[in-house]
Amino acid sequence: MDTATNQPLPVSYADVAAAAKKLEGVAHRTPALTSRTVDERTGAKVYFKCENFQRMGAFKFRGAYYALSNLSDEQKRRGVVAYSSGNHAQAVALAGKLLGVKAVIVMPDDAPAVKLDATRGYGAEVIIYNRETQDREQIACGLAEKRSLTVIPPFDHPYVVAGQGTAATELIEDVGPLDYLLVPCGGGGLISGCAIAANHLSPGIKAIGVEPAAGDDVTRSFRTKTLQIVHNPDTIADGARTHSAGKITFPLILHHVHDMLTVTDEELLRSMFYLWERMKIVVEPTGALAAAALLEGKLDARGGRVGVIISGGNVDLKSLTRFI
Amino acid sequence: MDTATNQPLPVSYADVAAAAKKLEGVAHRTPALTSRTVDERTGAKVYFKCENFQRMGAFKFRGAYYALSNLSDEQKRRGVVAYSSGNHAQAVALAGKLLGVKAVIVMPDDAPAVKLDATRGYGAEVIIYNRETQDREQIACGLAEKRSLTVIPPFDHPYVVAGQGTAATELIEDVGPLDYLLVPCGGGGLISGCAIAANHLSPGIKAIGVEPAAGDDVTRSFRTKTLQIVHNPDTIADGARTHSAGKITFPLILHHVHDMLTVTDEELLRSMFYLWERMKIVVEPTGALAAAALLEGKLDARGGRVGVIISGGNVDLKSLTRFI
Repeated sequence: MDTATNQPLPVSYADVAAAAKKLEGVAHRTPALTSRTVDERTGAKVYFKCENFQRMGAFKFRGAYYALSNLSDEQKRRGVVAYSSGNHAQAVALAGKLLGVKAVIVMPDDAPAVKLDATRGYGAEVIIYNRETQDREQIACGLAEKRSLTVIPPFDHPYVVAGQGTAATELIEDVGPLDYLLVPCGGGGLISGCAIAANHLSPGIKAIGVEPAAGDDVTRSFRTKTLQIVHNPDTIADGARTHSAGKITFPLILHHVHDMLTVTDEELLRSMFYLWERMKIVVEPTGALAAAALLEGKLDARGGRVGVIISGGNVDLKSLTRFI
Repeated sequence: MDTATNQPLPVSYADVAAAAKKLEGVAHRTPALTSRTVDERTGAKVYFKCENFQRMGAFKFRGAYYALSNLSDEQKRRGVVAYSSGNHAQAVALAGKLLGVKAVIVMPDDAPAVKLDATRGYGAEVIIYNRETQDREQIACGLAEKRSLTVIPPFDHPYVVAGQGTAATELIEDVGPLDYLLVPCGGGGLISGCAIAANHLSPGIKAIGVEPAAGDDVTRSFRTKTLQIVHNPDTIADGARTHSAGKITFPLILHHVHDMLTVTDEELLRSMFYLWERMKIVVEPTGALAAAALLEGKLDARGGRVGVIISGGNVDLKSLTRFI
């Protein structure tokens, strides 16, 4: 129950459990990696849930596949449209391919080439827009109306939230109860779904969302309990440039999330390269948000058991030269 | 039995099994990763044994730790010396730290900075030499004599070979019998140890070593059944610049290995980036040799079950800009 509105919350643990059942054998059950070096550095027992190893390279596949699999036959026949800065695009494209649903994706003209290519590679039609001058939601809605497509939103949808929550379900099933769960946060689909699952499966756990400092809208919304908005924040965490949390995710975050943290781009890059050099895993900037909060000491987790969601690994190697 | 010399072979499966027992709980049991994309591309079922996730970032920890743990108390008290282009250095340094044995490491002045730093970080004394003008073996032997240290060779030692073979033991135990096992090859410690284990645990398996084309001494030695030598080959696979196979590894290779393959630096780089971008794992050039042979079609493995050893992940991110 949402205590502010007295309405039932839009997603429950039963929804996450249903999503987990649907995703079994379709999504990868990604491994939870550990590192003695990280444990020594943080004084905690840390488990990294590697959604960078997920199909299409990010957790987004979970929510997109679950949302598409719940469409009616008529909706599936007509097709879907999605707008995304990257990973949700590939997720809907791949889910569409697997379920035989035609997908149209609205992507910004500054999306990483690796994400544009992969989306087209999954057989989706890509429509490019300008992030500064055009509104992606408006374009998607226009297409939806003109072509009778169903819009699959990147985070603000009960099925999408339920699907993303299965990452936390698997992690806790695989490694046992945790004291903290750190989760990257853009529009809040992953953190809200994971917090629902975590609170149910590991009572007393503290689920914490992590945003880039330049795009701290959810952190400010969480503190003020009023939805705050940010416009095209300047951060390398391209998956967390969302304007705000959503109508579905915001009440879920207020209810289930223990705290929100932020990290600067400099801290983010340092952690991303640490994960590359020490753990040998390729993580995209947004995917390293939660790890950065832990590695940069934003949370004192000494003596605790900590889950960290590594949310994605789709980074252009060529753009690395810019970061280094 | 070595059919050429009528002498018993220097390492047997029992030695690998003994090493596996000693390494249990000390070395990481690294995961075997799979990729639908790779399976589709090769037409095979492929299992990547991720020794880039091994302690200190490469399989070398296995052999070094096993060799050091077999020293007498007197030898342990005096310390050890090793020469290495990189990963063996870190391996001996870390094994020394864990076992309380002082380690002196002779490293070339062009070794990647990340490897020099890591070696010193494990508390070893590093002695730098020039690859063009000095002989590392001679320097190490001089130090051994002067300071009464035990030399831990990088590959040509029964305990080192037995230790490296445990990578194949784990892989086959975890994923079941295989038709092929592809293994990077420098001096032959990893391929000979792995071939011994593979032939024992998966009868009929074809163990295949992979070298850089510029440093194809073992391939030529294998074909001619006579030890061939190469001098400072020009390849980005810095771990496979060894002059030749050794007195211990060469007869083992002739007896246990099914075939040898080579890949060019261009093929190697392409595969290394493919592993980074598609599988999200950081692999060093030498570590990608076996994967490159498969991905570049040097072996037709269609319909088969293929093990691929990813041998290490210690690559300087800064040097990447050079490769890209």
